[in-house]
Formats: sequence, C-alpha cells, structure tokens
Amino acid sequence: MQPFELLLPLALILLLSKLMGLGAHKCGMPAVIGMLVAGILVGLLRYIPWEPLQTAFFGADVEFAISVMSKIGVVLIMFSAGLGTDLKKLKQTGVASIVITSLGVIVPMGLGALTAFMFFPEAGVLSDLFYGAILTATSVSVTVAVLKELGKLDTKVGTSIVAAAVIDDVIGIVVLSVLTGFSSGGNSGAGWDWFNPNACLVIIKIVLFFAAAIALGVGLRKLFDRMERSAPHNRRIPIISLAACFVYSYCAEKFFGVADITGAYLAGILLGGTLSETPYVESKVDTMGYLFFSPIFFASIGMDLDFGGLTPAFLAFGAVFVVMALLGKLVGCGVGAKLCKFTWADSFRVGLGMMVRAEVVLICTEKGVQAGLVSESIYPFIFLIILLSSILTPILLKWSYAREEKPKKHPVPPPEWGEE
Amino acid sequence: MQPFELLLPLALILLLSKLMGLGAHKCGMPAVIGMLVAGILVGLLRYIPWEPLQTAFFGADVEFAISVMSKIGVVLIMFSAGLGTDLKKLKQTGVASIVITSLGVIVPMGLGALTAFMFFPEAGVLSDLFYGAILTATSVSVTVAVLKELGKLDTKVGTSIVAAAVIDDVIGIVVLSVLTGFSSGGNSGAGWDWFNPNACLVIIKIVLFFAAAIALGVGLRKLFDRMERSAPHNRRIPIISLAACFVYSYCAEKFFGVADITGAYLAGILLGGTLSETPYVESKVDTMGYLFFSPIFFASIGMDLDFGGLTPAFLAFGAVFVVMALLGKLVGCGVGAKLCKFTWADSFRVGLGMMVRAEVVLICTEKGVQAGLVSESIYPFIFLIILLSSILTPILLKWSYAREEKPKKHPVPPPEWGEE
Repeated sequence: MQPFELLLPLALILLLSKLMGLGAHKCGMPAVIGMLVAGILVGLLRYIPWEPLQTAFFGADVEFAISVMSKIGVVLIMFSAGLGTDLKKLKQTGVASIVITSLGVIVPMGLGALTAFMFFPEAGVLSDLFYGAILTATSVSVTVAVLKELGKLDTKVGTSIVAAAVIDDVIGIVVLSVLTGFSSGGNSGAGWDWFNPNACLVIIKIVLFFAAAIALGVGLRKLFDRMERSAPHNRRIPIISLAACFVYSYCAEKFFGVADITGAYLAGILLGGTLSETPYVESKVDTMGYLFFSPIFFASIGMDLDFGGLTPAFLAFGAVFVVMALLGKLVGCGVGAKLCKFTWADSFRVGLGMMVRAEVVLICTEKGVQAGLVSESIYPFIFLIILLSSILTPILLKWSYAREEKPKKHPVPPPEWGEE
Repeated sequence: MQPFELLLPLALILLLSKLMGLGAHKCGMPAVIGMLVAGILVGLLRYIPWEPLQTAFFGADVEFAISVMSKIGVVLIMFSAGLGTDLKKLKQTGVASIVITSLGVIVPMGLGALTAFMFFPEAGVLSDLFYGAILTATSVSVTVAVLKELGKLDTKVGTSIVAAAVIDDVIGIVVLSVLTGFSSGGNSGAGWDWFNPNACLVIIKIVLFFAAAIALGVGLRKLFDRMERSAPHNRRIPIISLAACFVYSYCAEKFFGVADITGAYLAGILLGGTLSETPYVESKVDTMGYLFFSPIFFASIGMDLDFGGLTPAFLAFGAVFVVMALLGKLVGCGVGAKLCKFTWADSFRVGLGMMVRAEVVLICTEKGVQAGLVSESIYPFIFLIILLSSILTPILLKWSYAREEKPKKHPVPPPEWGEE
C-alpha cells in the first residue's frame, strides 16, 4: 500500500477519539474511556466484509505502522509521567504516603496473584505475579480533578494521595521491570526457580540497567543545565530529550531485558525535577501525545479488543479480578491511612482516591500480554476496571464530603465519621 | 521486528538532524541542509555489512514505517504552509507581486522543461513539464531572515517578496495538481494529447476537487468559528484541524488524482486566514513537525540519496538544471520587478530573494519521482540547488545593500544603481 493511504485510518482514529473523549468527559469519566471506545468502534469495521476497507484499516502494513505509532504513544505517556514525577514531594509528606503505598501495592498485588493462581493453577508463578502487578498501577488524575473541584486538594487526604501515587508509580515500575526481566530471561514461569543462574543474571542485568541509566542521566542533566543557561526555551532541548527517551527505552528492552516503558519513565525522572526547562519539555511532549500519539495508542487497544477467548471460566475469573482490583486498592490504601492515624472517613477517601485506574494499567497489561504472561482476554475486564473505578470514585468522594458538610449544621456529628 | 526496535533509528535521526541542523545554522545555511546531511550520514550505514544493523535501519518494516512518518511530515509541512498563507496580503501589494510571480514561475518552468527536453527528448511532455514545475517552487524563509537582519523587511523589496512567495506557492500547487492529475490519469507523457477524453476527465476531477474542498472548507470554518467562541485554545481545535488535513490529503490523492500535498496545503489555507485560532493550531502543528516528523522527512530523503544513476549525460543535465534553477528565478522575478518600475538594484534583490529553495522543492521532486515522471538521480542536484541558493542569496543580498549604503557618503551614486 502507499504511505498516504494510512492518513485515512489515522484521521478516523483522531476524530473518533476526540469525539468519544469529549463525550466521556461530559459524563464525568476520563477521556481514556472515550478513546478506548473509539478504538472499539474502529475495530467494528472488521465485521464489514468489503475488501478495500479491510486492506485500508487492517492490512498487515497498516497494523505494523499503527503498532509503531502506538508504541511511541506509550513511550511518550511514560516519559511525560516521569517528567512530572517530583521526587522531592516524597520527602515532604513523609512516612504516611510510604505506608499507604506499600499496603496499596501489596494488597492488590497479592489479591490479584491469588485470584490468578486459584483460577489457573497451571499458569505458573510469574504469570500469577504479573496479574497481580497489573493491579498495582494507579492513575490519580480523575481523583485530583474531583478533589480540586471540591476544594480538597490541599488537605491531608489530597497531598497524601498525590505523593502516594508517585511512590506507587516508582514501585510499580520496579515490579514490572523485575517481572519482565525474568520473563525475557527464559523463564516461562512454570518452572521458575529463584536460585537458578538465569535468575541471577536477570537481577544483575536489572541492577546494571538502573546503574547505567542513572549514571548516563547525571551526565545528561549536566549537559542540559549548560544548554538551559546558554539558550533557554530552545527547540534543541525537547528534541534531545525525546531522543534520549527513545534511546533509554530501546536499550532497556534490547540489552537489559527491562521493559521499554521503564526506560522511558526513568528517562523522564532523570530529566525532570530540578531542571528549569522540564515544564517546557513536558508541554512539547504532551502536545505530541494528545494531538497524535496517545489517541492512537488507546484506540489501538480498543481495536484489538477480542471477546473470542472469553470462556465461562475466564468470565468468572475476570469478574473476581475486577472486584479484587477495586477492593484491593480501597482496602490496602485505606488500612494504610488508618494505620497512620487518619480518621475513618479520610482513610476511606484515600482508598477511594487511589482506586482509580487509567492509562498505566493498560500499559502494564499490554506489557504482560506481549511477554506472553497475561491472556489477551483480560482486556475487556481491564476496561471495566477503568470504567467502574472512574465512575465510582467521583460519586463516592463527593458523597463522602457532602456527608461531612451536613453534620456541621448539627451540634453532634454522627459517631462513625470522626473529625480531624 | 518488534515495534520498539524502531526507536533506535528514530532517535539517531532526531539527534543527528538536530546536530547537523545546528551546524548548518551556524554556517548561515537553512536547517534543511543539515537535516539532509543527517539523512545522508544515516544512509552511509548501508555500507557496513553487519546483518543486525541492516535489519535495524533498512529492513522492509523499518522503511515502510519511516516512509509513513515522512509522509505525515510532508503533509504537516504543507498544512502549516497553508495555515501561514495570508491571502489578504495579496490584495495589499497589488499588481507588482502578481507580475513578479508570474514571470518567476514561467521563466524557470520554461527553462527547466526546455533543459529536460533537450537532454532527454524521448521522455515526453509531461516529464519535461514536471522538471520545469520543480523549479517554480520557492522558500523565502532564508530571504526573510536576511532581510530582517538587515532591517529591510518592511521595504518595497521585502513586502513584494513575501507576497510573491504566497502567490508562487498557490500557482506551484495548481501546476503540480494538474501535472499529477494527468500522470495518474494514465498519461505516461509520451503519448500525451490535450484533447483526449482522459485529459478532459483529469481536468474535471481537478475542478471537482477544488470545488468540493472549498465547499467543505467553508462549512468547516463555520464549525470552527463556533468552537472558537465556545472554547478558545481548546485541544479539540488542533485535533480536528489535523484530522481534516489528513482527510483532505487522502481524498485528494485517492479520489481526485490530485497530489496529497495539494490537499494538505488547501486544508491549511481554508482553516487559516481570518480564524482567530489559526496561530494556536499552527503552533501545535509546528511542534509536532519540528520535534518529530519534519526531521524524519528530510532525513529519509537524505537516506535514499543514490548516486548510482549518475551517468555522464545525467551529470551534464544536472549541472545545466542547477544553473537554470538559479538563473530562472533571478531573471524571471528580476525582470518582473523591473517591469513594475523597481530600480535595477531592487529588481536584482527581488530576483535574489525569490531564488532560494528549501523544503517545497524537495516535496515537489519527491512527488515527481513517485509519479515516475522525474528520475531519482535528480536528488543530488536538488540538494545542490538548495545549498547554492541558500549560500548565494544571503551573501549577494548583503553585498547589494552594503554597496548602496556607501554612495550615500559620496555626492554622486554610481550610475548603474538607481535610487528609489
């Protein structure tokens, strides 16, 4: 096919993604939902048996080109997330966020892995753990938007959630790197052994990757510092950042067996933080993302959504998995907050806030599917997790705060909701 | 190959393009030259006989993905050019620019076609005309930069050049559309006949395309006007613009036999001009362009540069072609300016200013090569045209103005340089 012919599917994806994204936004849901629906709609074209249409949208060439662009989309999302990660925030909020996140990672990961093990005992430890790892991802943008709207972002609940989300991302990336490392180290999971030489090699490679990446990153930061002073807001800075991000992603996956998204995220953290040009780079990267690459990534997941593998057993597993995804974060983070002497009401809110999933859960799932550890049939349930969490969290958060406002008119607050 | 593996060639292209672009800029040449050189350097990797390297950079998958992205790059460049085209400027400068452009199109086109005909008499009229059409393209960004530096942009010379460049683009696009239409209409050029029914069909299709595009564009403008008022600076505006540009490009090439770049340029003109959001859309499109897609387009041309087809006959043709490219614009536009009562010095400057070629000449050449009307071996000469014109014009313009400053100290100006 001619390269120009790809413009049609791209235009349709962009247009539908924007329309559906706006629709989702109007219903109070994140735009991600809309973009996934757009992809599903484009995917429905598969069922029209008209040869030219099939070639135009689903030819092998088209699928490869779209997969490359959606890969760039994922890398940009993770790079931007890294750039926006402010490691200094962690120091400010102290122990509370660490306790909240730790339980918020362990509980859903344990529940997810346990569910996978109970339904598919023959799949192997690595596969089970990957199902668990998927549930550790959180995306607090919906929560932040709701808290902002309610004027509660600067409260103890708000700052804890934002800081916990940062640690959550970092831990999630480390867990993912380790699991990807083991899977590419030749362990299918079934015959997995902590002490075999292969496993040692995997761990050595991961450590080497982080060491090399950080060392290179420190050098890059110095270069950027110098460039910033000589020519601020210059085009060369975002271009070199982008190239560095691509190199990190490529090397992570190719030479160290670490996920490419880990490389992109790490590149973002290393080039973010204290550099004065970071917001400039972030805005340029985000423009490329929202204008072109992100819609293609989300739509491509929607396009590939396949209900063919949904056996009754998998349906049952999926339903339990969705419940575990929601409960795991709610309980894990809620208990973590309670342990740090939050009130019951605030603990509930922290749990709710951390419950929301969006782009990161999709990216992790994709990684698991590509590694052969996670079934492709899980996508509809991941979709459901995003949908339910982003519908439930705003409703319940608003309800919880509304409930608190009322008692102020009465002299005695209901006993079950304490005051700070 | 895995999609992530494309990140390596992309990173190398971005990095080298930026480095070479900066180098070119330091030498007073346009960044385009640097990006072409970057592509040539990447292309040299072809000569390293190491299998993994060949697969990573020149595998069929990689070439297809890069060709798609470079197509998007071209479309974005032309869309941005269209958005920046202010048709109202033409009314202001009046007849002079029209005379300058008309001669500036006819003379180089005639000289180019004549040269092609004399060297390759068997190639056919359509091929000859396409060689001519390539020489009509102009890119005045270097001229504008030089005039700005000299403080001469707001003079009669400066405004005439800017306005003439706009008309030049419009005429060039129309010529290109007609030629592409005829070539896709089944005329190989050799047996070309103005009055055959095929030729009629081609013209009808071109007219239909412009009518449909303008009608749709008027509707789109109304939609945009409404969107601007309800939500200015909203992400939906650049996204929908981009999708519209893609649809225009696709339909132009697919259904009307008009070049895809014509579609993109027309979409830009229709969504540009009086819309208050145009600069916003343009800045977003430009970000995507300079950060990612433009370097890939220019580098991909450099990568494909092939000196294999350079026979002695073609070398001789190329040399004459380069001279015609430079002289054609200089003489055509210069005589045009003189006819409009410019002084000799100013006429010379207008000719010089219009002589510079950059991205548009490459885009037109690519189109001709794809249509099978222009030999791929012309690229090195096109490269030479860009290089020479962008070196000569700044030097000669500065010299010409410096020469004028001097006589002011003397009572009598040299007779050959009149004063306004």
